[in-house]
Amino acid sequence: VTATTGNAAGGSTSVGGAQAVDGVGMVNGYRTESAATLPSDVRARIDRRSRALGPGYQLFYEQPLVVTRAAGVHLFDERGNAYLDAYNNVASLGHNHPYVVEAITRQLQTLNTNTRYLQDSTVDCAEQLLATLPDRLDRVVFTCTGSEANDLALRICAAHTGARGVIVTANAYHGVTEAVAGISPSLGPGVDLAPFVRVVPAPDPRVAGSADAGAVASYMSAQVRAAADDLRRHGYGLSAFVADSVFSSDGVFAAPVPWLREVARTARAAGGLYVADEVQAGMGRLGDRWWGFERHDVVPDLVTIGKPLGNGYPVAAVALQHAVGEAFGSRARYFNTFGGSTVATAAASAVLTVLDRDDLVRRAAATGAHLRSLLTDQVAPLPGVGDVRGTGMFWAVEMSAAGIPDGARTRAVVNAMRAAGVLVSASGPAGNVVKIRPPLIFGRAHAEQLVDALATAIAGTAPSKEKA
Amino acid sequence: VTATTGNAAGGSTSVGGAQAVDGVGMVNGYRTESAATLPSDVRARIDRRSRALGPGYQLFYEQPLVVTRAAGVHLFDERGNAYLDAYNNVASLGHNHPYVVEAITRQLQTLNTNTRYLQDSTVDCAEQLLATLPDRLDRVVFTCTGSEANDLALRICAAHTGARGVIVTANAYHGVTEAVAGISPSLGPGVDLAPFVRVVPAPDPRVAGSADAGAVASYMSAQVRAAADDLRRHGYGLSAFVADSVFSSDGVFAAPVPWLREVARTARAAGGLYVADEVQAGMGRLGDRWWGFERHDVVPDLVTIGKPLGNGYPVAAVALQHAVGEAFGSRARYFNTFGGSTVATAAASAVLTVLDRDDLVRRAAATGAHLRSLLTDQVAPLPGVGDVRGTGMFWAVEMSAAGIPDGARTRAVVNAMRAAGVLVSASGPAGNVVKIRPPLIFGRAHAEQLVDALATAIAGTAPSKEKA
Repeated sequence: VTATTGNAAGGSTSVGGAQAVDGVGMVNGYRTESAATLPSDVRARIDRRSRALGPGYQLFYEQPLVVTRAAGVHLFDERGNAYLDAYNNVASLGHNHPYVVEAITRQLQTLNTNTRYLQDSTVDCAEQLLATLPDRLDRVVFTCTGSEANDLALRICAAHTGARGVIVTANAYHGVTEAVAGISPSLGPGVDLAPFVRVVPAPDPRVAGSADAGAVASYMSAQVRAAADDLRRHGYGLSAFVADSVFSSDGVFAAPVPWLREVARTARAAGGLYVADEVQAGMGRLGDRWWGFERHDVVPDLVTIGKPLGNGYPVAAVALQHAVGEAFGSRARYFNTFGGSTVATAAASAVLTVLDRDDLVRRAAATGAHLRSLLTDQVAPLPGVGDVRGTGMFWAVEMSAAGIPDGARTRAVVNAMRAAGVLVSASGPAGNVVKIRPPLIFGRAHAEQLVDALATAIAGTAPSKEKA
Repeated sequence: VTATTGNAAGGSTSVGGAQAVDGVGMVNGYRTESAATLPSDVRARIDRRSRALGPGYQLFYEQPLVVTRAAGVHLFDERGNAYLDAYNNVASLGHNHPYVVEAITRQLQTLNTNTRYLQDSTVDCAEQLLATLPDRLDRVVFTCTGSEANDLALRICAAHTGARGVIVTANAYHGVTEAVAGISPSLGPGVDLAPFVRVVPAPDPRVAGSADAGAVASYMSAQVRAAADDLRRHGYGLSAFVADSVFSSDGVFAAPVPWLREVARTARAAGGLYVADEVQAGMGRLGDRWWGFERHDVVPDLVTIGKPLGNGYPVAAVALQHAVGEAFGSRARYFNTFGGSTVATAAASAVLTVLDRDDLVRRAAATGAHLRSLLTDQVAPLPGVGDVRGTGMFWAVEMSAAGIPDGARTRAVVNAMRAAGVLVSASGPAGNVVKIRPPLIFGRAHAEQLVDALATAIAGTAPSKEKA
């Protein structure tokens, strides 16, 4: 089509309105009803975007943010306003990290080819990644995205176990290919779960009825056992128990640990493999340890790794035991055109090098401890705050009114923080979790700015009943 | 694991031997039986690689190629030997294209964020892409890989049609996610087709029994109609007819056209959508036209685009009609972390700009015409050559002995060309197709070097019966 006519909308576009964002479940999505509050240039941009981009796209915030530049922990709009980025978990080393940018650029100028040639860089990167993982995990397959990594993990599990069933948590998110969307209840009722999927409650101590780690683990294990029984009864068997190690879309559950050791044992006893989805929890985000599953004192059968692995370059991976991959490898080839390319692995190697060199996992733990104390002191006591939980650089603040989840106020808080120049988002099955995921390079002053903005935003918003 | 111990192989590694490459169907794959012929450093590299990379990886050639540098139409090994690259269809503008590298670098230094912010670059790129497509295709969804694009296309088709059935060609390849592997018979018998998939013969004029375009179209249409009937009879209905516009893995069929106009009409009459997989055929590769389906005088309902879109940067897309996407968009959100990012779209925009600025589609047609005459004169008459076919920068040379496909000789030819410094590969259901896919920047002299090497390799190899 001609790009300039502006009349390619197919008849259904209204101002700021062509994106079907309502009712499909993104808590912090731009909604058409706030179009009238937008500056006209932003409305025009949203309209133009909606006439060029296809279904399913959403924007953050009631007033979508026009970003034009980034550096370190900040995003900037076109007027030069700085926003403290406490949400984007891809640029974990900070935006535009010079070491990574230089590694990518140098490799782009040298060689960008695929894994069907012998190239040491792919193997170097695999070894570097394996060095961060438990000994039992000794092989890597590169993909481009976390979705592809989880999708491949499911295929490998099915080949190894000969079974099909998958158990996930009740509001899990594992990606957007057809197969992994089918194990992602958080995508909402419009996206069918696969017939061989069963869900178990996330390890919320309140649901488990105890703040004791052993009790939470036993509760979740019992649920997994029942789900596995049901899958067997339906003829699917159990192929995999798949869990995001921080239960991000379930609302962020990080303590008390360990739970997953017992849960994994239960899944294995039922014949399944344990896949740790570390796309969000991994690479130091939780502080102290490289991987979320390490906090649970368990070694997964497969680990999927994505978002921060290239600090923005599309690179992801599955790590696994050699033996677990054999059945798949004996039947199928797996060629991912861009997966494990020289440039992808140059990016990932640079990220792994910086994480190690700058001791960022420990930094995430230290800044995370400061964040914990700030949140405990300044935010937890505020009226309307139901819970504060997290670890390292991953935090959740739950908003509630008289014990009832307060999604409207959560959105108001997130939007007020955006107006104050601090970027976070919202999540959770009831939409009442302020989700906070700063880059690992966050410092104490950034943590203080973040918590001040959060406390101010909470104080400046009312419980939703009073708003309606 | 410790990266340097070298004993993490799980017990099954032998020299050059841990990769289960045999029997899973890659024609030009390295096979363990040639390990003894390799230089010891290459054997050591293969061993190291097999101890770090997971299942499904394969290498090209009997003697895998160690590449260390590239420029334009050449790859270089570590001793500085140049190889004319007549195979890699990703670096369609030539390796390390400076305009694209600079665009990526500049954007990496400026901003690398996702589509949940308002960023003109994503929309600019979508409009630029739509300007190359027929008017009826008016929306773009970005993904990272062609697999993800085809996977998403299937989800969009299913939502729109309410049906599940998919028709593909007999040796089709559409990608490696679970869903698209399930519609890719070329992955071999170890990878199950989905229950709702039916295959039809590729439009090989010899199978159709006529070199008349209308007859080929009618033959293929009848097959599609029968497959659709069968899908309806099984309760699946028809969601999509999906075809690579050049039938690459089926053996490359490019003439006589048009066929797909009638075939698409048949699929639509059965309630299905027509998805043109342009991951390999698109972006000028076939010469004269931007898209393979244009040669068939038909407008698809969805078009999937991949490999060359970023000239090596992982970016891919689905283009579609607004109305076709509405059912999906009303139920599902689709967020692809790296898909449509500022850097991905900067890369794609740069590629689209260079293709246009340097008139590379026309160049592909002109060099393709030269290649056609060289192949016709120097290769087609050689004993053992069964067929020469193709268009633009996509050619197939079929090797046969007394009318029987000669896969062993095909491999010998491909390996002899590699030894002579020209890179091509092999394909086709019987493994007897030399597959040639030079970059669009190929010149007349490159075409001559390629065809000379091919003719020499064919003359220097014997029919496989004499070899065995």
